[in-house]
Amino acid sequence: MPDHARRRRSLLSNLEENVFVAYNLENHDTATLRYLTGFTGEGLLLIHTDETILLTDSRYTEQAQGETDGIRIEETRMWPGKGAAEALDRVGVSPVAFASTRVTARWLETMRDACDVELIARKDPVASVRIVKEASEVASLKRAAVIAEEALGRLVDEIRVGISEKEIALRLEWLIRETDGAEQIAFESNVSSGPNTSLNHYSPFRHPRTLQTGDLLLFDFGACVDGYRSDITRTFSVGTATPEAKEIYDLVLRANLAAIERVKAGMSGVETDAIARELIVDGGHGDHFGHGLGHGIGLEVHEGPGLSPRSEDTLEPGMVVTVEPGVYLPGRGGVRIEDDVVITADGCEVITSFPKDRLIEVG
Amino acid sequence: MPDHARRRRSLLSNLEENVFVAYNLENHDTATLRYLTGFTGEGLLLIHTDETILLTDSRYTEQAQGETDGIRIEETRMWPGKGAAEALDRVGVSPVAFASTRVTARWLETMRDACDVELIARKDPVASVRIVKEASEVASLKRAAVIAEEALGRLVDEIRVGISEKEIALRLEWLIRETDGAEQIAFESNVSSGPNTSLNHYSPFRHPRTLQTGDLLLFDFGACVDGYRSDITRTFSVGTATPEAKEIYDLVLRANLAAIERVKAGMSGVETDAIARELIVDGGHGDHFGHGLGHGIGLEVHEGPGLSPRSEDTLEPGMVVTVEPGVYLPGRGGVRIEDDVVITADGCEVITSFPKDRLIEVG
Repeated sequence: MPDHARRRRSLLSNLEENVFVAYNLENHDTATLRYLTGFTGEGLLLIHTDETILLTDSRYTEQAQGETDGIRIEETRMWPGKGAAEALDRVGVSPVAFASTRVTARWLETMRDACDVELIARKDPVASVRIVKEASEVASLKRAAVIAEEALGRLVDEIRVGISEKEIALRLEWLIRETDGAEQIAFESNVSSGPNTSLNHYSPFRHPRTLQTGDLLLFDFGACVDGYRSDITRTFSVGTATPEAKEIYDLVLRANLAAIERVKAGMSGVETDAIARELIVDGGHGDHFGHGLGHGIGLEVHEGPGLSPRSEDTLEPGMVVTVEPGVYLPGRGGVRIEDDVVITADGCEVITSFPKDRLIEVG
Repeated sequence: MPDHARRRRSLLSNLEENVFVAYNLENHDTATLRYLTGFTGEGLLLIHTDETILLTDSRYTEQAQGETDGIRIEETRMWPGKGAAEALDRVGVSPVAFASTRVTARWLETMRDACDVELIARKDPVASVRIVKEASEVASLKRAAVIAEEALGRLVDEIRVGISEKEIALRLEWLIRETDGAEQIAFESNVSSGPNTSLNHYSPFRHPRTLQTGDLLLFDFGACVDGYRSDITRTFSVGTATPEAKEIYDLVLRANLAAIERVKAGMSGVETDAIARELIVDGGHGDHFGHGLGHGIGLEVHEGPGLSPRSEDTLEPGMVVTVEPGVYLPGRGGVRIEDDVVITADGCEVITSFPKDRLIEVG
């Protein structure tokens, strides 16, 4: 089990305030509570230098007792409302910090009306602890990458012209999820073909298309292990690749390889993005690479640091990020190649290994 | 396609303000944008009496053009930040309403600093439009119930002592998702056995248990059709049912049937809950029914109205709710029976039909 108490101490040591409050309602912030306590359900967490209190209701009490250690669990139906204010008043230490990106405006308004302590908005103090991964977290991310890639490897031979994106996506997710240790897929898989490959967040489950010869076929997917999410993209050609597809693939591959070759601790998110972006601009496709080069992965599939022209982050050893340049031609198709890497002092360790050195033809 | 423009007019006619703003960042409020426009991606929505504007970034522009009709789509990377403020200032109508339960404290703070219009917190003005379902929405919910129940029906014969909760859950979700029209499962399925059946939000994917003779076996699951989510629970016995299991099952069944028999438009959420709760209290298990009797279903698996001792809602024709009494004995197991019903003027229409009249023995 991770050392949750150490994580809580790190959090408090970064804050001016001596109390931090967070909640997970309707599973909108599972990551924060899981990171700080191991608890995966809904509830409100109150961390003070002297003690940690988890308020939850009868649906989760037994689960919380099994998942946590060394924290006080209180059962109350009112934790989303005035139960939280009562708990804060009982601890009686002011001011109290909270993550303003993680609470609703309504919650804050209610709490400010209902409790006597002063509430101080911080952007997301837990994110800055989570951003550098512990060895056990890197191990989970590596396992999540291996499980996802093994599933894709088993699936590739089953791809045929005439089957649908949905059939492929269901099979891919089945192969991931049946693996021991995979508690879930990392996020809803994007399996897109032909012109759909230019839609960055395509869902193959709503109006699935059927594979045709000459299609690009893109997989953006991952596995979830111990809550940690891999995020991988590979692009194939169904049958013989067109010259345009090959040209775009080679450009994206060069951008991917260059960023992986040169990224290291101390580099900014802007600089890292620029390594790949300059190559794509030089290749004449600057207007067809609309998103950033990458983002952190961990308990959430999108977390810090950001690698993009607008990033304010600087890379440190132990951060784990995606490297995912892409070129998208609306109405025709797109290519993205995405790896997951651990930043080190003088470079990075690539934890994904699915072949990518040429546009593989399948089907 | 639903009449999204009519929905937007209904929303504005309920507001004092002439402008409403909503956003879906990291898929935390897909329901609001999908309900009001058909768009299923991330972006910021601005509804004014004269026009509707959707701000989104290049990852979603093409998708938004395909999914929506009659709204203006603007591409900007800055929609989660100052792009939103600029758009509000450009429309130039003040005040602007937003749903305080749907925005983060951070977003509100940023917007109040960055734009000149006055922002007025409303709890969730779209929820009060969504709470009564249109005929097409009821049709989607019915189809979502049928798909889920047919999957369970096919699965039941495959259940054997010695297989794991995870194997069963994966198979159930596969059967749902492979059905034409099912775009997803409704939520992560709870397939729990033995003592795990008392954990209301159990996940079979983390540390799955293997079925044993004499276990209770509980399924809480659903399908998602056109975005609409069914939510169904059935409880079985693995092999011969114990006398305790039968006794609890019969009590929960009586509570379920009584609530379905008597619920109708005009009744409050508190009254509806009390029908089932009084029977369970009389049966000596009042302390073992910790959650409310039910909740609305629709584009979200938990929405209004609430059926519970703390509900402030009154039922109206066209609302669709779950009826899900349960009795849970910590460490031993629990029984829940959950149906989905459409409220009518003089009763309700039950849209779930999986057999429940006795504790079915499987395996």
